[in-house]
Amino acid sequence: MLEVAYQEALRGRAEGGIPIGAALFDADGTLLGRGHNRRVQSGDPSIHAETDAFRAAGRRRDYGPTIMVTTLSPCWYCSGLVRQFGIGTVIIGESQTFHGGHDWLAEHGVAVTVLEDARCVEMMTTFIAEYPALWHEDIGVPDETATA
Amino acid sequence: MLEVAYQEALRGRAEGGIPIGAALFDADGTLLGRGHNRRVQSGDPSIHAETDAFRAAGRRRDYGPTIMVTTLSPCWYCSGLVRQFGIGTVIIGESQTFHGGHDWLAEHGVAVTVLEDARCVEMMTTFIAEYPALWHEDIGVPDETATA
Repeated sequence: MLEVAYQEALRGRAEGGIPIGAALFDADGTLLGRGHNRRVQSGDPSIHAETDAFRAAGRRRDYGPTIMVTTLSPCWYCSGLVRQFGIGTVIIGESQTFHGGHDWLAEHGVAVTVLEDARCVEMMTTFIAEYPALWHEDIGVPDETATA
Repeated sequence: MLEVAYQEALRGRAEGGIPIGAALFDADGTLLGRGHNRRVQSGDPSIHAETDAFRAAGRRRDYGPTIMVTTLSPCWYCSGLVRQFGIGTVIIGESQTFHGGHDWLAEHGVAVTVLEDARCVEMMTTFIAEYPALWHEDIGVPDETATA
């Protein structure tokens, strides 16, 4: 399942965007929705990979059996999405380049698996080194130069 | 500032949607973005009032001085948005019909004010009584009839 999210991240990178991808699956492995961060491509700060996949899955009545797969540890915004809608399982590509809210989700009963996938780590490490200001913008960290 | 959010909620209700509105302001009171829940209108479960207002405000580098005004206590999804992007102040119309993550935000340094505005309480009370299944869908609560 991580492969679908990873391919979404690659697509985002190819579009000149932030390379984070995600996909929402049903318990039986059926793909419900997939997506990637669109801050750059759509000029929309509200579309993180997880929210894009969630949106693509459409309106649903019960997220308990669903599985959110994402290439990167979900930020507080996306962790809040998981908690509010009761998504039961989260599978994370890596949490080395960014540590979001997945410990908090696990504390609140979400089944969390962190794979620490080397391809995902490499992709984000390279991106952050090349575009630090864009990355900081995406996680709400004001650059010191911007606040000085 | 609550008036802008309230008018957005009224607009959502007039469209046949869930009557929750929000607006993001700069510290000096300048309106940056306004919006309302669009689950019904757009078939998009990712657009809560707060995310709609956040999106409408476009890409920004520093949310610290901004003020999120919403007619209803923000759910975990929208509370996560506030925390991740460092929105410094949240003003809430009411928290009687739904108690989201605003205590958590206050614990993490966000300046939170709950107005318990009678108009906002009345609007949501009426909506929830009329459309309980739709309301439960919007906050990720599976109906008992759906899970049985």
